[in-house]
Amino acid sequence: MHAHVILAAGQGTRMRSHLPKVLHPLLGKPLLAYAVETALALGPQRLVVVVGHGAEQVMGALRAYPVEVAVQEEQLGTAHALLQAEPFLQGFSGPVLVTQGDTPLLRPETLRALLEGVREGAGMALLTVELPDPTGYGRILRQGEEVLGNVEEKDASPEVRAIREVNAGAYAFGGFPLQALREVRAENAAREYYLPDLIAIYRAQGRRVVAVRGGAEEALGVNTREELARAEGVLLQALRRAWMLRGVRMILPESVYLEPSVELAPDATLWPGVVLKGKTRIGEGAEVGPYAVLEDTVLEPGARVLAHTVAQGAVVGRGASAGPFARLRPGAVLREEVHVGNFVEVKNSLLHPGVKAGHLAYLGDAEVGEGANIGAGVITANFDGKRKHQTRIGKGAFIGSNAVLVAPVEVGDGAMVGAGSVITQEVPEDALAVARGRQRNLEGYARRWRERG
Amino acid sequence: MHAHVILAAGQGTRMRSHLPKVLHPLLGKPLLAYAVETALALGPQRLVVVVGHGAEQVMGALRAYPVEVAVQEEQLGTAHALLQAEPFLQGFSGPVLVTQGDTPLLRPETLRALLEGVREGAGMALLTVELPDPTGYGRILRQGEEVLGNVEEKDASPEVRAIREVNAGAYAFGGFPLQALREVRAENAAREYYLPDLIAIYRAQGRRVVAVRGGAEEALGVNTREELARAEGVLLQALRRAWMLRGVRMILPESVYLEPSVELAPDATLWPGVVLKGKTRIGEGAEVGPYAVLEDTVLEPGARVLAHTVAQGAVVGRGASAGPFARLRPGAVLREEVHVGNFVEVKNSLLHPGVKAGHLAYLGDAEVGEGANIGAGVITANFDGKRKHQTRIGKGAFIGSNAVLVAPVEVGDGAMVGAGSVITQEVPEDALAVARGRQRNLEGYARRWRERG
Amino acid sequence: MHAHVILAAGQGTRMRSHLPKVLHPLLGKPLLAYAVETALALGPQRLVVVVGHGAEQVMGALRAYPVEVAVQEEQLGTAHALLQAEPFLQGFSGPVLVTQGDTPLLRPETLRALLEGVREGAGMALLTVELPDPTGYGRILRQGEEVLGNVEEKDASPEVRAIREVNAGAYAFGGFPLQALREVRAENAAREYYLPDLIAIYRAQGRRVVAVRGGAEEALGVNTREELARAEGVLLQALRRAWMLRGVRMILPESVYLEPSVELAPDATLWPGVVLKGKTRIGEGAEVGPYAVLEDTVLEPGARVLAHTVAQGAVVGRGASAGPFARLRPGAVLREEVHVGNFVEVKNSLLHPGVKAGHLAYLGDAEVGEGANIGAGVITANFDGKRKHQTRIGKGAFIGSNAVLVAPVEVGDGAMVGAGSVITQEVPEDALAVARGRQRNLEGYARRWRERG
Repeated sequence: MHAHVILAAGQGTRMRSHLPKVLHPLLGKPLLAYAVETALALGPQRLVVVVGHGAEQVMGALRAYPVEVAVQEEQLGTAHALLQAEPFLQGFSGPVLVTQGDTPLLRPETLRALLEGVREGAGMALLTVELPDPTGYGRILRQGEEVLGNVEEKDASPEVRAIREVNAGAYAFGGFPLQALREVRAENAAREYYLPDLIAIYRAQGRRVVAVRGGAEEALGVNTREELARAEGVLLQALRRAWMLRGVRMILPESVYLEPSVELAPDATLWPGVVLKGKTRIGEGAEVGPYAVLEDTVLEPGARVLAHTVAQGAVVGRGASAGPFARLRPGAVLREEVHVGNFVEVKNSLLHPGVKAGHLAYLGDAEVGEGANIGAGVITANFDGKRKHQTRIGKGAFIGSNAVLVAPVEVGDGAMVGAGSVITQEVPEDALAVARGRQRNLEGYARRWRERG
Repeated sequence: MHAHVILAAGQGTRMRSHLPKVLHPLLGKPLLAYAVETALALGPQRLVVVVGHGAEQVMGALRAYPVEVAVQEEQLGTAHALLQAEPFLQGFSGPVLVTQGDTPLLRPETLRALLEGVREGAGMALLTVELPDPTGYGRILRQGEEVLGNVEEKDASPEVRAIREVNAGAYAFGGFPLQALREVRAENAAREYYLPDLIAIYRAQGRRVVAVRGGAEEALGVNTREELARAEGVLLQALRRAWMLRGVRMILPESVYLEPSVELAPDATLWPGVVLKGKTRIGEGAEVGPYAVLEDTVLEPGARVLAHTVAQGAVVGRGASAGPFARLRPGAVLREEVHVGNFVEVKNSLLHPGVKAGHLAYLGDAEVGEGANIGAGVITANFDGKRKHQTRIGKGAFIGSNAVLVAPVEVGDGAMVGAGSVITQEVPEDALAVARGRQRNLEGYARRWRERG
Repeated sequence: MHAHVILAAGQGTRMRSHLPKVLHPLLGKPLLAYAVETALALGPQRLVVVVGHGAEQVMGALRAYPVEVAVQEEQLGTAHALLQAEPFLQGFSGPVLVTQGDTPLLRPETLRALLEGVREGAGMALLTVELPDPTGYGRILRQGEEVLGNVEEKDASPEVRAIREVNAGAYAFGGFPLQALREVRAENAAREYYLPDLIAIYRAQGRRVVAVRGGAEEALGVNTREELARAEGVLLQALRRAWMLRGVRMILPESVYLEPSVELAPDATLWPGVVLKGKTRIGEGAEVGPYAVLEDTVLEPGARVLAHTVAQGAVVGRGASAGPFARLRPGAVLREEVHVGNFVEVKNSLLHPGVKAGHLAYLGDAEVGEGANIGAGVITANFDGKRKHQTRIGKGAFIGSNAVLVAPVEVGDGAMVGAGSVITQEVPEDALAVARGRQRNLEGYARRWRERG
């Protein structure tokens, strides 16, 4: 069994943001969540997150996870940050992993390799990566597996600068390095206590320090918005690739945005520019048209959402279709073979099988019976200025164009509503309701009006 | 004269799809169509496609092409597949090309080079490509132009594995290799008959086997959705480049999707994210706004389709414009200088020159006369629940906001329709038609209603 | 002090366009503007632009800049073009920079280095770049800093062809090279007078010619639409990167289009596919949803524009939101906490704080009072076929669904308008206005109508 400490106290000034760095969203989740979930994947006996800058906000985001939180009141460097975790690890004597809250691409396998390093007898194991351009990073001096030192850029000779292997900021220790941390000195320009100093301290104590080599991407620490976007790009590419290999068709995959929480089935098709967020689920053979934006939305098998549709919290049933330009809001449920067309908004409404609402309509707080036809421009007036009310439209009903159904109101099965009618009272089954003025033609009026100039 | 056999019987399990692999769409056409069209570009005397998995569906897709179809009932390997073409080539003694149905990037020039190889005396010519990472491919042993053998990855020594030249699966034979195919043995793990075995058989017979080197991309065989997307990317990049060199302006070209069937004229502009499908034609100086999705749609010179417009089977005339957020459905014809604005749908309707329909309208099954003005929210109620009917609006007519024209109905030239009117009878030329209730103001009612809480 | 001549007379046939090459837009500005602005950044004493092809159009585009324009009547080559600038430089004896109108990526620092070269005593300094593939370019022979010659591709030996350092077309001269230009001969296939010939002429006169090495991108000359798109890509990447480093969050940054005139504040968020043009300004913490297209639009801090919104010349106030699918046209001003929802168009209208217009509405030439509620489908009928008129809606008013307000008209504070009403006269404060027919239900009518078939 091991323990794990995540350092998440840094301010992240280079993000230029009011939000603490580790809370910046990365594919819909805070940056820190990646570090926490990677840590949890190894089943640590204890997991401590050290917070500091924006501590309260960060603690809020951590509430969903089984972690303990240590607060670093003053930002005195990474070694000092790690010390803050000590009270939470009293009585624990096994190996300890230390990672950063801002390296979301670190993989569990890599952490296992670090633990392996200390289980094989090293006092300390550290993750290194080889970068094409190591400028700015501490270089690693090593002999075989063993690390001789970590040299900061500014102290490096030209030969050392030529080294491209750098410290990636993830460590394992045989046990919590309490003694060693107390020996760290803040003898540097920033007057901070630095974790890499432990390398020299361990070696001075005659304990072995080993390096574990990871992939270059894993080390990507997010310090700027650009690096955040780069990390997002790496994660997206992996997600898209994994789904394609599981049978999802993507056209222009590099234009597709999707979060890790989304689930896709084989033979689903995603057209260019699709955005899928939250608990969206796309069923087998379902199709999502170009530039559709779906959040927490379910497409049942064979459902189709056409170009430019925006949906949140909606369900599109088997063989049903929505769009182009449909707007499905929370609680919109389209059963089998329903069609909701362009410039139609559906909110908190149940559309039974086969309902058609093809154009320019608003259905809010409504239940629409099987096979009903909702004309162009129809509106359920669900809000009276004080409260929302329900509309019920019966099976096979036909609501004429531009009709308004003033809720609460009910249109019976098989009933019809004339175009342009404002319906304020119940329409009985099979009745025709009309509520409009009679047409009068004023001959020549238009001509005279034009002539008046 | 030569014959050509395309092998298209494979199942394509790694696509994870119900659809046979060779039918997966690539820029709007099935994968197999590329192999067939490339073959046809060389004018073969006979062209045989060997189908197997999903034979009926594949045959359906082949109906449009002058090909013969051989069925491989059991999937016993590529050599066995080629044997199935033999009955269709009886009496033919010229050279035979063999290609795969899943390599859409193969170019006719490359096939010509293969034919050249056998015309110059080789018994067999095979296409090779050099891959940066050849892992998984059979390596080619050669001496000058001559191929000594094809070694499968698993049988390869480290030296052979270091070879990066691989077999790309396209062949020419001096004549149909009937004898040689009969000598192929299924002595391998999969118990399949493999085409590359012909290399050794030909050489054992003392016949020369030569290699023709193609471009790395040409060999891209589509086995997964990811490879399909990659092939699509390669084709798209070539298409975009070709159109740009012919005078088309593209902004963020890498975001543009367009099919090979689309035609573009010089000085046309495509904004980011444009999707052009089918027989779409964009005229000189025409402009397609960001995220517009057009299928089988014609933009005449100087026409403009603004952001987020979706059109199918429509025509936008010279100097006319549609969008943003216009929806043009089949049969929408916008003559010169027509403007169709936001949230307007036009279906099966002819809009004569200068018509304006700027906002939130639905024109279906209508003819609208020159210079007519269609107000916001106007709807042609073309469906009575049973049948569709026509609406005719005369020249220079003015249809007030939210009016409904209940078809079949006619509004005469120069006539006006009052806002909110439901028109069910003809409106004579130059008349004003009104059909609405009279306004009553109930003083203080709103205040009292609010006070009731 | 120095003078600067920009050569912008070329035809640009390879653009295949009616538009002169240097007027092709690049991120919303003509190509030539980049050369002019780079030149102006160095504060030249005189700036002459030599125009030729499409001279009048080009002169029109130059009107905004403090430049003098020389016209090259016949296109006789770059040396001849430079000669045309001579009359504008009479009496000027300082160093002269010469650049091309079609190299938009050239940086002011590089030009400074060229000037430095001649200030240090060289007669001529020229910009060179090293290209991975120099095919087609003149190769530079040099010894240390000194240039020995410029060899055209066709005249180059294999050794010279292997040189990858090429002439990038930007020069500095110790003084205007009048004598040297007169010595240039048109002894080549095109019978044109070439500027690189000055190298040999200067050297024959015993004057030093030095090379200044620039970045490969800087030399990118735009000769085709593809090169234009490439230059646009380079500029876009630099813009996105600069804004991200200043605190802007971009999701899929490579899909974002934004012009140099746009301003973004820290903690602003841009979702995929956002298009920002002109004088658009996005305030701190504001959010622009996927595929929104904004031109000359201001988002105040914390404002949100949701997916697929299209805006021009609009203002969205603090905490206000628009979209998805909102259409804001010039003069749309949304004050704090206003919400404009899907399929709503606002034009030349002031919406006071807290106004809600959630669905399918058109507000044109209107002023809407604080807290008013505009129902779904409401339309301000602002055009009577001749003129536009104003609508005023009072504070806290409630306009029922599908109502039409026929302008000029006024709805008083706290008044209500019944759903589907056509309002043609003033509605007093706190009154309820209704203008619609009474509902009649015709029992069994729908059934009988259906049965008639």
